[in-house]
Amino acid sequence: MLKDYMTSCQQRVDNKLRQVIPASSDISTTLVEAMAYSVFNGGKRIRPVLAYAANQAVGGDHSSADAAACAVELIHAYSLVHDDLPAMDDDDLRRGKPTCHKAFDEATAILAGDALQTLAFETLCNPQLLPDGDYSAESRLKQLHCLAEASGHAGMAGGQSKDLLSVGKPLTAKELQHMHNHKTGALIRASVQMGALSHRFTPVDQLEQLDVYAKAIGLAFQVQDDILDVVSDTKTLGKQQGADLALDKPTYVSLMGLEEAKAYAQSLSDSAIEAIKAFDDRATVLRQLAAYIIHRSH
Amino acid sequence: MLKDYMTSCQQRVDNKLRQVIPASSDISTTLVEAMAYSVFNGGKRIRPVLAYAANQAVGGDHSSADAAACAVELIHAYSLVHDDLPAMDDDDLRRGKPTCHKAFDEATAILAGDALQTLAFETLCNPQLLPDGDYSAESRLKQLHCLAEASGHAGMAGGQSKDLLSVGKPLTAKELQHMHNHKTGALIRASVQMGALSHRFTPVDQLEQLDVYAKAIGLAFQVQDDILDVVSDTKTLGKQQGADLALDKPTYVSLMGLEEAKAYAQSLSDSAIEAIKAFDDRATVLRQLAAYIIHRSH
Repeated sequence: MLKDYMTSCQQRVDNKLRQVIPASSDISTTLVEAMAYSVFNGGKRIRPVLAYAANQAVGGDHSSADAAACAVELIHAYSLVHDDLPAMDDDDLRRGKPTCHKAFDEATAILAGDALQTLAFETLCNPQLLPDGDYSAESRLKQLHCLAEASGHAGMAGGQSKDLLSVGKPLTAKELQHMHNHKTGALIRASVQMGALSHRFTPVDQLEQLDVYAKAIGLAFQVQDDILDVVSDTKTLGKQQGADLALDKPTYVSLMGLEEAKAYAQSLSDSAIEAIKAFDDRATVLRQLAAYIIHRSH
Repeated sequence: MLKDYMTSCQQRVDNKLRQVIPASSDISTTLVEAMAYSVFNGGKRIRPVLAYAANQAVGGDHSSADAAACAVELIHAYSLVHDDLPAMDDDDLRRGKPTCHKAFDEATAILAGDALQTLAFETLCNPQLLPDGDYSAESRLKQLHCLAEASGHAGMAGGQSKDLLSVGKPLTAKELQHMHNHKTGALIRASVQMGALSHRFTPVDQLEQLDVYAKAIGLAFQVQDDILDVVSDTKTLGKQQGADLALDKPTYVSLMGLEEAKAYAQSLSDSAIEAIKAFDDRATVLRQLAAYIIHRSH
């Protein structure tokens, strides 16, 4: 059952994140509290689940993928804290709880996001944080490279910048896709790649097929988010329903209509599954995840 | 001459930073312009100079320390962009020019800082960025670890949080020192360590002596900053003279008086030089830097 698998991965990565995120500080207790608050907030841990599932698909076991799973979730958490800031999306609620700058203050939220990003990289290169992990320097360096490319100016941060500069501007479907490939797609691709790279000696053709898979589900994930912004309600979403519409942000739904957006999400999910057809049963979870992503309700 | 050495290191690291910082972007030109604006702003490149000088002291040549030099400057640049934000120190001027959020906007400044931090880590793990560097995975991983520890919640970000939470509160000299050891000291120590680690097989006792040196000059640097905030003028500083006093921030000068602060800076500089007495003439620059840091006028 996919649900059980996801629950087990969520519990696993939460336990590992509790090892990685400091419980106390001799310099700023407020800062580490804000970091923990932003990470342990009922998130679905989709990116860690993808890292574990990709690792499994190439023959690894979960323990080798713990650092990758934590690192991608920490980058995701940092990006949400900064996205929610008044100067960015100005959101008061995140998963039904006050956003970091509301629960603490704006300066603390900026610094907590900064420190969560740092911690993502540290998790991959500090052997004291998760001492049981596989510690091949070559493999860690490749994962760090993958994470940095996905997070920075040519990935997530670039996409976020483009998104903010596009508010109130009409985008074509191609431009919208280009933006989402960076803003959300890059980190989803990195989650899959880093999971696979955590298992040493994964062949290049498998890494490439997984990347085609990841690119498709990354887009499907965003299309579904746009659909949920229209069809779901605030309580189920844990954030303001209709927020994107209210901000006059271009979405797949505003661009292609609800029905066509749903069909597009389905076709992306199908092509993700097609991309990994050469994999054996160990990729079953990845196939189920491709379906889950477009059928989730929040 | 120290001045010539510093100019040569500044030019070298600026050339390398121009290789590392993207000249254009297919996703957000604004973001990469804000990144370049924040890095190429007439900074003194003290941290890169320390990385090169430490590398030289242990017998390396400059080319092996380029990635370390760029990485520490990128972290420094990111921290300045975020420190200047309205929710933090709310500074309009940095080295005589509008701060990033004034020249661009607040959201772009947040993202530019974020992406500069990412780029610091990427510079150490992406072989395409500085392809001529020494690329031992073990050495790079150690440098990444060192940089992450110095930048994150237990280093610079923690110190910055403590600093903000201390505005208007009386700190003892010990508490002030603890804060500065994190806020500015950690990255200065990392600059020296990463420079030395860039040369493979640097013995542990040399790394330790260099760390004692770096810890002392890191503090001396901050004491001198506090002195300059009182004795210099806005034009020479390139930022508002008296800014710390105006913010009611505790400083070494407010705590121990001007003369005692000057004597303290001198004693720190002396103990830095003492810590590396076992090094040969290749450490001459490090010795000169220990004197320079407490005699600079901006």
